[in-house]
Amino acid sequence: MEGSGRLLIMGGAAGPALLVRFVELAGGPGAHIVIIATASESPETAEAAYAQRFAAAASVRPLRLSTRSEANAPGVEAVLRAATGVFFTGGDQERITGVLGGTATDSLLHQLVAEGALVLAGTSAGAAMMSGTMITGGDRPGVAADSVRTGPGLEFLPGLLIDQHFAQRGRLNRLLSAVARYPHELGLGIDEDTAILTDGNCFEVLGSGAVTVVDAGAATEIRVPPAGPIALTGARIHVLPAGYTFHLTRRGPVTGTRDPERERAA
Amino acid sequence: MEGSGRLLIMGGAAGPALLVRFVELAGGPGAHIVIIATASESPETAEAAYAQRFAAAASVRPLRLSTRSEANAPGVEAVLRAATGVFFTGGDQERITGVLGGTATDSLLHQLVAEGALVLAGTSAGAAMMSGTMITGGDRPGVAADSVRTGPGLEFLPGLLIDQHFAQRGRLNRLLSAVARYPHELGLGIDEDTAILTDGNCFEVLGSGAVTVVDAGAATEIRVPPAGPIALTGARIHVLPAGYTFHLTRRGPVTGTRDPERERAA
Repeated sequence: MEGSGRLLIMGGAAGPALLVRFVELAGGPGAHIVIIATASESPETAEAAYAQRFAAAASVRPLRLSTRSEANAPGVEAVLRAATGVFFTGGDQERITGVLGGTATDSLLHQLVAEGALVLAGTSAGAAMMSGTMITGGDRPGVAADSVRTGPGLEFLPGLLIDQHFAQRGRLNRLLSAVARYPHELGLGIDEDTAILTDGNCFEVLGSGAVTVVDAGAATEIRVPPAGPIALTGARIHVLPAGYTFHLTRRGPVTGTRDPERERAA
Repeated sequence: MEGSGRLLIMGGAAGPALLVRFVELAGGPGAHIVIIATASESPETAEAAYAQRFAAAASVRPLRLSTRSEANAPGVEAVLRAATGVFFTGGDQERITGVLGGTATDSLLHQLVAEGALVLAGTSAGAAMMSGTMITGGDRPGVAADSVRTGPGLEFLPGLLIDQHFAQRGRLNRLLSAVARYPHELGLGIDEDTAILTDGNCFEVLGSGAVTVVDAGAATEIRVPPAGPIALTGARIHVLPAGYTFHLTRRGPVTGTRDPERERAA
């Protein structure tokens, strides 16, 4: 089924093509979009801005969730059940996990995504919270254990550690630090105006930038001292632009899946 | 022989420990240091600053080479033959290759390094010029072929592509772009206050940061379109702090070479 269990995870600063793609995945002219701007400091502004960008949908409405009681309120269920697409804005990912974590909204979103009833999208903080483990801070340069802080995300996509604004903010060091510490987690760095679209155990890359996958699974030696630089030898790295597909549990790119349009253009 | 063919390549902003190590490698209280500040826009200032930092040596003198005729002047030979250590300051690496490239100074330095007559050190631009291929520009975010410019260095260490101020300026993307384009070259990103010290086919990491090695040799697919993001799958990455040794022609870390001091401290 189109949209079954699908997540569209954007690295921030998404351009019109990605936002249009979200509306299409949610049903195009028949799409019913719900915007959740919990991460944002000024949710009104974020809601209004995205409502305008999603104007091609049949309906767009904000769902204001600023407190845990709002996220547990009975009225939420009808709003989410009517939606074909839910969009989480950027801001602070810890506001999302703090306000929504474990609430009725959290549970229902997981259920609706699993049923394929809606496409769940998020950008920036709305992307970070999708992963099993999210990076909550640490833009200090250097590959050190104390240069990055992590915490559990809402786990729509377990086994992953997602970082956003990746190339634009030069964040590979903090992603390397995080996967050195938690080598089970695949590290995904998503550039701005770039997204992954999940489909079962795979994701496809969309947008104008690249997704960098850091895999410490093959690393021969990992040392994470309490302070100072980490050591990490033999890790793997993949840089994947639009059209590439990556298999999450096989931890490798799927070959022969490039977009033929892109082949011709290149 | 102590110092035979040794290069000490620093990623910029070297602290006292690295600078003292250079003087020790050059003979300690018997060291005769020559400072070449060709890369610097104000060589007097750079010469004076390093002369003070190398005060523990028996002698320190600047060798002012601002033009190709100065680099071809007969007087240079006696100065370099008397040196046990030569230090290249930071600035613009293209000034070094433009002024020194192919001159008598260039040839004599290669000869004296090969004979083990002196230790050749450089920081920042003075590090970049050591490699076979140096990055000459491009700090634009994103992993794109046009996000990085390269040119030949003075090739004291062929087969390498050295980038400096690595973690501090978030330069992994440009290093990835460069090795995707030239996968024969091992990409080395040296952090500030961090250095590699070569010994034959190996280098050891010194200093407070890490050296990141990017190896596109094992990559299964590399695509470098004229514009837009590159694709690079299955590349290897190593993050090596002080005490680690890397074998350049085997393209891998040497195991069991960690500094026991560091082991105890960790």
